[in-house]
Amino acid sequence: MTEQTPPVSALATDPEYRAAVIDLLGVLAYGELTAFERLAADAAMAPSIDDKAALAGMATGEYHHFTALRDRLELLGVDPAEAMAPFRRAYEEFHEQTAPSDWLEGMVKAYVGDGIGMDFYREIAAYVDDDTRALVLEVCEGLGQSAFIIDRVRAAIVEDPRAGGRLALWGRRLVGEALSQAQRVAAERDALSTLLVGGVDRPGTDLAEIGRMLARLTDNHSRRMAALGLAA
Amino acid sequence: MTEQTPPVSALATDPEYRAAVIDLLGVLAYGELTAFERLAADAAMAPSIDDKAALAGMATGEYHHFTALRDRLELLGVDPAEAMAPFRRAYEEFHEQTAPSDWLEGMVKAYVGDGIGMDFYREIAAYVDDDTRALVLEVCEGLGQSAFIIDRVRAAIVEDPRAGGRLALWGRRLVGEALSQAQRVAAERDALSTLLVGGVDRPGTDLAEIGRMLARLTDNHSRRMAALGLAA
Repeated sequence: MTEQTPPVSALATDPEYRAAVIDLLGVLAYGELTAFERLAADAAMAPSIDDKAALAGMATGEYHHFTALRDRLELLGVDPAEAMAPFRRAYEEFHEQTAPSDWLEGMVKAYVGDGIGMDFYREIAAYVDDDTRALVLEVCEGLGQSAFIIDRVRAAIVEDPRAGGRLALWGRRLVGEALSQAQRVAAERDALSTLLVGGVDRPGTDLAEIGRMLARLTDNHSRRMAALGLAA
Repeated sequence: MTEQTPPVSALATDPEYRAAVIDLLGVLAYGELTAFERLAADAAMAPSIDDKAALAGMATGEYHHFTALRDRLELLGVDPAEAMAPFRRAYEEFHEQTAPSDWLEGMVKAYVGDGIGMDFYREIAAYVDDDTRALVLEVCEGLGQSAFIIDRVRAAIVEDPRAGGRLALWGRRLVGEALSQAQRVAAERDALSTLLVGGVDRPGTDLAEIGRMLARLTDNHSRRMAALGLAA
């Protein structure tokens, strides 16, 4: 846990930047809360007690990230529920569109989601002030607890090779849905988008760099699918 | 967290007592794991983000209790999953028989379950060695996070007075199912039952005291139902 001193910097002097950071914390916090829920639901479906415990542990980790983000919102004098509310629909639609039909799909989703989350936290860290960056990286460090899933998915594919094709398609659908919801959020939340493209006094990034960021995210996704033994 | 030194005492010298404590830790650990799952499922159903966060926090607390109990089983040289396995069916049947049909039933179940759990931990503490007692009481201290539910249930009954009758019946069903599963577990697990009734060299309790214990549990349950504004 980083020490929670009231952040100064651009947060105090630039209302547009402040709104952007509040949006960022809100979208991350609600994401952690729904990740908690999804992983807990996976734990409930787990065939073995050890897998159940491992998934419950991952879920608990997400809840602790949630509280770190929520505490920061409170420190900024913002009602966390209000900051999260604008993003509720996007997450709910994402999860409705990608409800796992079985345990294996749930595992692939948990692993892929954990990885994409970690990548996104690392990318966004480049665009925020020092205090926010420290928090974002701290939460990010707690991710990546999903390595045990690799064994489970690989073993399942050895047992039933046809599962590989189905799960590869599933992985593609997960990323497609995530990108489409992310795009909607970016379109609806001007402040949040200016984090990337910059504001009046703040350098942003150019389209080429955004393209490279997306390339990094999809490359990492492909690497993770390969680790599971799946085509991306 | 109590310091985890290898317990000695009756645990080392009395195999029957050791088996009983392993059963006790197993039944409590699996109970915490399923409590985690049920509260997380309630969080997913929560109408407001604040309630969602509060229930997710309760669930996370149960997960931490689970890890404390699991760590103690490992310290005793036991595979936690094996120690929990005999109790899986009882919990699963309990939760199948008492699946909440809506958010309010889920809240009453969370509140009543939290309370019964706390009472049971306190009662059982009288029958175990010092090390086990310290662990049991430590876990117990983490319970009782459900007071916020009182407001939610009371408010719902004010809004729809008919809900009170339905929820009162629901509370009775919860306790009935819990007792019937507990009875089955006691019948199937001889070692566990000897914790209460005693072994060759260990004083147990008599039937009259078991009756008084049950009376205390049901009295406390009635008090909790009254706190919710419900007839027991």
